[in-house]
Amino acid sequence: MTLVTLSPAGEQAPAPEYKPTAFLKELVKQMHAIDSYGTYEGWPDERVLAPFIVTKEQRRQIPVVGDPDEETLARVKVLYNGVAAMIEQNCGLMAVPMANLSHEGFGRALITVGKLVVVDRTLRDVHRFGFESFEKLDAEGNKLLTPALALIEKFREVAEA
Amino acid sequence: MTLVTLSPAGEQAPAPEYKPTAFLKELVKQMHAIDSYGTYEGWPDERVLAPFIVTKEQRRQIPVVGDPDEETLARVKVLYNGVAAMIEQNCGLMAVPMANLSHEGFGRALITVGKLVVVDRTLRDVHRFGFESFEKLDAEGNKLLTPALALIEKFREVAEA
Repeated sequence: MTLVTLSPAGEQAPAPEYKPTAFLKELVKQMHAIDSYGTYEGWPDERVLAPFIVTKEQRRQIPVVGDPDEETLARVKVLYNGVAAMIEQNCGLMAVPMANLSHEGFGRALITVGKLVVVDRTLRDVHRFGFESFEKLDAEGNKLLTPALALIEKFREVAEA
Repeated sequence: MTLVTLSPAGEQAPAPEYKPTAFLKELVKQMHAIDSYGTYEGWPDERVLAPFIVTKEQRRQIPVVGDPDEETLARVKVLYNGVAAMIEQNCGLMAVPMANLSHEGFGRALITVGKLVVVDRTLRDVHRFGFESFEKLDAEGNKLLTPALALIEKFREVAEA
């Protein structure tokens, strides 16, 4: 298949192969959730997620001066919303994402479950937020999810507090 | 003493009596920390903290439409910075404040110590952020501080994680 993806940099790149994993399907749901105008309606999932894919070459071309654009900030939030949703599905407790992004592209992303901080990430160069492939995007989700679930297991009382 | 305070509403009100408690002194420090231009230099402490005092009458006059002004948002952050500093002084662990305020005056303020959420507050009508007296401002600080320290005591392992 030779689908073409419009990247954030406005360039065309051949779409990396899309395999609908649990996390990627959750991200699609979260993208639809923020799509107030129904722009993505009827789009195939890989097209909805296409802006998450930024190749090394594209990344280099994105300047890190000034403010990251609103769409990029929204995608960062969608990623953590997706991880939070997966945490909820796995442990049955409410997970609350919170991303604090400064205009300069720095920030901190948290997910809390009860009184437990299960994800805590420092963000930088948010302008260039993206992944080389769907596989790497999925891997990132799991890299956040797995230790979060382990922490909840270990400190269940705090997660339930 | 009949000091006169310039309130955020621009009105004049007699200053409530100022007693330098540990928390209020910490707030003064935090106000100086954000005072990049040295505006508050040489001011008496009660003058530095005066904008925190908003009487009921003044509160009613502040509209909650549009965005809260930058100074008000900065004061909200100063309050949580102050509580975080007091937590650090009391338990010897680093406390990290994080306030996420939407432009509409809603938000969430957190303080984390290690992987423990020790303060978690939903904020609303931030436009009207303020306290009727220095005594109430001090009481608010202690209301946030006391349960935070109790939580750290209870879940020390998580706070140290």
